Amino acid sequence: MKRYEQLADVVAQMIRSDVLAPGDKVPSIRQASAQHGVSPSTVFQAYYLLESRGLIRARERSGYYVSENVRKLLPEPAPSLPISSSTEVSVNDTIFSVLDAMQHPELVPLGAAFPSSELFPLDKLSQSLRRANRVGNSAGADTNLSPGNELLRRAISRRYMTAGVPVSPEDIIITNGALEALTLSLQTVAQPGDVVAIESPGFYAALQAIQMLKLKAVEIPMDSGAGMNLAALEEALERQTISACWCMTNFQNPLGSTMTTSKKKALVELLAKYEVPLIEDDVYAELYFGNNYPQPAKAFDDKGLVILCSSFSKSLAPGYRIGWAVPGRYFEKIRRAKLMTTLSACVPAQLALADYLHKGLYDRYLRKLRQLLEDQQLLMSTAVATHFPPGTRISRPKGGFFLWVELPAEVDTMALYRLALEQGVSIAPGPIFSASGDYSHCLRLNYGLPRAALGPAVETVGRLACALMK
Amino acid sequence: MKRYEQLADVVAQMIRSDVLAPGDKVPSIRQASAQHGVSPSTVFQAYYLLESRGLIRARERSGYYVSENVRKLLPEPAPSLPISSSTEVSVNDTIFSVLDAMQHPELVPLGAAFPSSELFPLDKLSQSLRRANRVGNSAGADTNLSPGNELLRRAISRRYMTAGVPVSPEDIIITNGALEALTLSLQTVAQPGDVVAIESPGFYAALQAIQMLKLKAVEIPMDSGAGMNLAALEEALERQTISACWCMTNFQNPLGSTMTTSKKKALVELLAKYEVPLIEDDVYAELYFGNNYPQPAKAFDDKGLVILCSSFSKSLAPGYRIGWAVPGRYFEKIRRAKLMTTLSACVPAQLALADYLHKGLYDRYLRKLRQLLEDQQLLMSTAVATHFPPGTRISRPKGGFFLWVELPAEVDTMALYRLALEQGVSIAPGPIFSASGDYSHCLRLNYGLPRAALGPAVETVGRLACALMK
Repeated sequence: MKRYEQLADVVAQMIRSDVLAPGDKVPSIRQASAQHGVSPSTVFQAYYLLESRGLIRARERSGYYVSENVRKLLPEPAPSLPISSSTEVSVNDTIFSVLDAMQHPELVPLGAAFPSSELFPLDKLSQSLRRANRVGNSAGADTNLSPGNELLRRAISRRYMTAGVPVSPEDIIITNGALEALTLSLQTVAQPGDVVAIESPGFYAALQAIQMLKLKAVEIPMDSGAGMNLAALEEALERQTISACWCMTNFQNPLGSTMTTSKKKALVELLAKYEVPLIEDDVYAELYFGNNYPQPAKAFDDKGLVILCSSFSKSLAPGYRIGWAVPGRYFEKIRRAKLMTTLSACVPAQLALADYLHKGLYDRYLRKLRQLLEDQQLLMSTAVATHFPPGTRISRPKGGFFLWVELPAEVDTMALYRLALEQGVSIAPGPIFSASGDYSHCLRLNYGLPRAALGPAVETVGRLACALMK
Repeated sequence: MKRYEQLADVVAQMIRSDVLAPGDKVPSIRQASAQHGVSPSTVFQAYYLLESRGLIRARERSGYYVSENVRKLLPEPAPSLPISSSTEVSVNDTIFSVLDAMQHPELVPLGAAFPSSELFPLDKLSQSLRRANRVGNSAGADTNLSPGNELLRRAISRRYMTAGVPVSPEDIIITNGALEALTLSLQTVAQPGDVVAIESPGFYAALQAIQMLKLKAVEIPMDSGAGMNLAALEEALERQTISACWCMTNFQNPLGSTMTTSKKKALVELLAKYEVPLIEDDVYAELYFGNNYPQPAKAFDDKGLVILCSSFSKSLAPGYRIGWAVPGRYFEKIRRAKLMTTLSACVPAQLALADYLHKGLYDRYLRKLRQLLEDQQLLMSTAVATHFPPGTRISRPKGGFFLWVELPAEVDTMALYRLALEQGVSIAPGPIFSASGDYSHCLRLNYGLPRAALGPAVETVGRLACALMK
């Protein structure tokens, strides 16, 4: 990182932690130059960068000020309270309508489940794809059947090992995105009629998979900061036979919650006590803010009961459809289930990602992406605070690209969803994140979009929400 | 096609149809030149090509003769007689062992389910992959969610339309190979406990899917030339409620049988009478010998009850994992099932295949591949006739790359499978093609391999089979 980028980060951190409040004057070029022992031109470069990131603004002949529109804080959502009995799941059409809305290029996709492809390193990836497939070695499936390409499994293993998570290449099965890893896992450990513990609110794909496999769901309450309520999970485990727990330990979708290390350990121990497998969806882990990679619960799995699922789809290349499972004791069953349903993942894409990772390009790009997402969370939170009705609450994730917004109870976000579509904006309404139809006054927003689109789109949704209050 | 290639084809056809028998002298260069009105050098080029294809041999100072090792004819297998009650399916480990054996590069994969990648146009495909992904447009999933990339759907539609099969781009869902199309189809039309009619012997993936989805199978008898016995199918439909019929109408795996057009019509009508969907696996259709593309049963589907599934995996690029479904009335259900399990197929691979097809490269390459496979079927049939025990029968498919070999009843092909592996050759033993454990004296051989490897490998298996007779 260059000197001016370091300086910009110091100032950004002061803004985020409220040391510099909105409207405050930022130290002058001369002051900052003296304070930090850098040249005036370095300070100027840093301030220019902060201005382009939307954090400060220049006023003519007066210097730089913290943007008024940064860091208006709303309270966090209250812990969720889903019904505690197990229920059959019936997914409604809204989910498919939300997924379809992602495909309309004229909509601002605040409801999308992926960051905008404009944030991805398209050119470098394309170079890797072309370099890795130069010799025409990728058309044959012969040596790349499940568990998948060895170079790629080694590259993934190396990332885990470096982060202190003991995952060897032989532990990994490459899949068509994390979604396939998750559904194959669920299919492997649960039989029709079985009960699965899921988060509430939680990822709608879990609901879809449960419905498709004819399982039942028991929804566990969530804290918007700390994740799943383990006391409630234990009660559920006591009350009935549960075949699996499907859980996002880091930057949960839609809340953004992250379990602490000790809580992850407690989760693994609790489930091990009841011999219940944990299906850990960890697709957002690489998008942490700050300096510390959040380990998965898998890191504390002595008994092989944790099936870790992840992918490159949220942080690098959704279109490549490459994910993986680290299935512990279920390895052979899941490898076979993969062979029986889709045989293997796309070979050219596996080779491209192996090349991209081995060249060390991923980390360099991720550093920039994390910074950008952290900035944009701040900007979007502030825009919500500015434009949404009084009484709105909002989550404060430490990674990922989702905000969970809790509106006053009288706002029906399904109605808001339809109104926003008419205005060219999609949102993800709360009810799609639960089988029991809760969260009718909540919604999920995606801040992983081109910056220019965020502010006006949030303003539009806020205006419509205010109108629904009347 | 060049003049000498046309001439070579005329002579090859005479050999295949026994007008020229093994050992016969082929017309001299001078005779042929006069007969066909071409220059002697054109005849020489044609004979040189036929020699390289293994069909004729030069004898010093004496001219060209039909190879002794060409076209020794064995009788075709008898029609199959599976038990007629519906059964639960339990797939044994042999299938996975056969799939694993494909991945060992030191084995000659006579048991493989794909042609060798050496037969694929690796360089041209790689060029298409690189050309189509030059601009880095393929990392985002946004506009390529199920039903899949529009350019590719248009290219597939054009092939069908040209062949007189009315399939529009809007009718197609792109999948991760035909296997995903087939399993999603089965999952969509059948519920746990339901009965599915399948071919016997039939594709083991159907058995795997039936087991995974907790269905039951009723195995319908097959004729090695004409395919499924429709009278037996009708009896089964009369006897019980059947939720789906899974069938390969062209170059069936493993028999190689093909239904006539009128039989395909009759199949569609019969199933329509009982309102039973047909899951039509048509992955080998492009590998027809001769001049006539064999239409799928889907061509005669008025009621939208036929789900046509196919792919590029058997004829172009297995490693790309791109297939499709044409689901008729089940379109929306299957599109949603795809979204719920794997979201979309790999975008760079879709773009590459769209480019390859739009450039007109597929037809040019297929013409060569079909010729090569037709030659190699002849060579392998002859090698089997030469080296296998007396009493052996063999199928005579008019396309594809499989031969079905029926050995004398005392030969246990599971034992043969294990012995052959020790000698560095894999075969696909008969029992993996049935839930009822029949076909213990049968096996499937793949002639879509580099020519040099075929003869010695067949000789090895034949020698081992003879030893098992004693």
